[in-house]
Amino acid sequence: MIKNCVITGATGYIGSKLSQQLLDYGWVVNVILRKSGTQLLPSLEGKVVQHTYDGSTESLISAIKLSKPDVVFHLASFFIADHRSCQITDLINSNILFATQLLEACAVNGIRNFVNTGTSWQHFRNDEYDPVCLYAATKQSFESLLDFYVDANNMNVITLKLFDTYGPDDTRPKLLNLLFNSIESGDELSMSPGDQLIDLVHIDDVIRAYFTAANHLLVGTLIRSHKRYAVSSGAPISLRQLVELLEDLACKKINVNFGGKPYRKREVMHPWKPSQTLPGWIAQISLANGLKIK
Amino acid sequence: MIKNCVITGATGYIGSKLSQQLLDYGWVVNVILRKSGTQLLPSLEGKVVQHTYDGSTESLISAIKLSKPDVVFHLASFFIADHRSCQITDLINSNILFATQLLEACAVNGIRNFVNTGTSWQHFRNDEYDPVCLYAATKQSFESLLDFYVDANNMNVITLKLFDTYGPDDTRPKLLNLLFNSIESGDELSMSPGDQLIDLVHIDDVIRAYFTAANHLLVGTLIRSHKRYAVSSGAPISLRQLVELLEDLACKKINVNFGGKPYRKREVMHPWKPSQTLPGWIAQISLANGLKIK
Repeated sequence: MIKNCVITGATGYIGSKLSQQLLDYGWVVNVILRKSGTQLLPSLEGKVVQHTYDGSTESLISAIKLSKPDVVFHLASFFIADHRSCQITDLINSNILFATQLLEACAVNGIRNFVNTGTSWQHFRNDEYDPVCLYAATKQSFESLLDFYVDANNMNVITLKLFDTYGPDDTRPKLLNLLFNSIESGDELSMSPGDQLIDLVHIDDVIRAYFTAANHLLVGTLIRSHKRYAVSSGAPISLRQLVELLEDLACKKINVNFGGKPYRKREVMHPWKPSQTLPGWIAQISLANGLKIK
Repeated sequence: MIKNCVITGATGYIGSKLSQQLLDYGWVVNVILRKSGTQLLPSLEGKVVQHTYDGSTESLISAIKLSKPDVVFHLASFFIADHRSCQITDLINSNILFATQLLEACAVNGIRNFVNTGTSWQHFRNDEYDPVCLYAATKQSFESLLDFYVDANNMNVITLKLFDTYGPDDTRPKLLNLLFNSIESGDELSMSPGDQLIDLVHIDDVIRAYFTAANHLLVGTLIRSHKRYAVSSGAPISLRQLVELLEDLACKKINVNFGGKPYRKREVMHPWKPSQTLPGWIAQISLANGLKIK
């Protein structure tokens, strides 16, 4: 039977990769886009059903009503590691208001299967809840609202807590891309002392995690519950080790100035070590292999 | 030394009583009002310093900067027991966005003492977190954001979890006022079967709880922490018992039709039994006495 989904954040890196994979597997893919937001990748244009979010709950109720999804994949979020005061409204609007309006739209239309996206940064210093930054706090904050809908509207929810992600076509201005640029240009890259551990998960593994989560919901074993699972590589390495690995792969020294910058104020030195990863899923692509794919 | 505070929600029942008491005790009282919100009580006009919230974080940063409060009392909230879809935006804007903007304004100005207001309804079925309604979920949701500011900006926070409140001048359309109206008019009042327990706290006790919380913060024993305390009467009674008590006090039968209405979908039959109430505080006004004051 053809499966039908709604996906938010389809213009982002993970969202666009997930949308493509869903299409490849024969799903009907409905995407919800902001009125004046980023564009879809050309490869998705014409293949997905587009719905517009105009800021109102009503527009999402219509989108969900028209889509009748078997599963909603909620990936849209506004990420900012160190917020400024002028970004508070956008952070709350994107990560809490929009997400709650989406839940309400599901509740009103009797849609119960919902895959949510969280972050390992909700677990600074390895605590059950200890946010690294306000962004991570908004993710936790939304989960409290989710819990209400799970109980009051019999929803079935899995929150996938993502770590760092990487892979082909990734144009986000993240660490790995800075390093790739430096390999190419030879320009010096000023970095912190580099002893922090990072947990990098390949995009193909991340996409499989979303499919695995959807399967758990579709087979109906999770009823009226909200489960939280980590999507971790299980093999964190230090920033210094990462640079060495890249140097090996590139057969080239990278011009990194370790200690040229201080650590961030709330630098995550040891990423969260989750006690429970997603059942039926394990990261399969080692960093050495994953970087070669790129 | 003269103490200085900022109070939100000063136009509400509890906020106006707290503002009056603070003035009586010689505090400088700054109130933050929405551009087109409810008016202050005439008795407070001209005695408190008024600041305007125009929806922006910037307007709150200015208000806090001008006020330089020793303590912020955050009481503003949008209460709705059973939300409709069209109220989602107002719920999130009032209970999460405004509250977070207020915290940001405190952080930017180095203001650390913050008394927050929660609800016993965050604890349906007596669980650590189990929201009765979306309103209660927004309160919990905001606490996750609070936790970030406590840790990242060294704030000292007490969240007071309120139960039902009552007292003189209370014009809110709540249970007790319905009963008072029925005593006067003799009109039949259709009610649920009436076996749910309710925990009613007199306004004077509630106001003392805010002062006690402020004192805990001002003496500096709570550093970089977020404590949550219940403001409970410790003596819940059933709705039927409440009606009997009122009949005794009024020397008059009240025309209540118990069972004329069903219980609410998520009726709280047994209010939260908190393990920890606010240190140094206990409800002193029994219901029988509190109702006589009225």
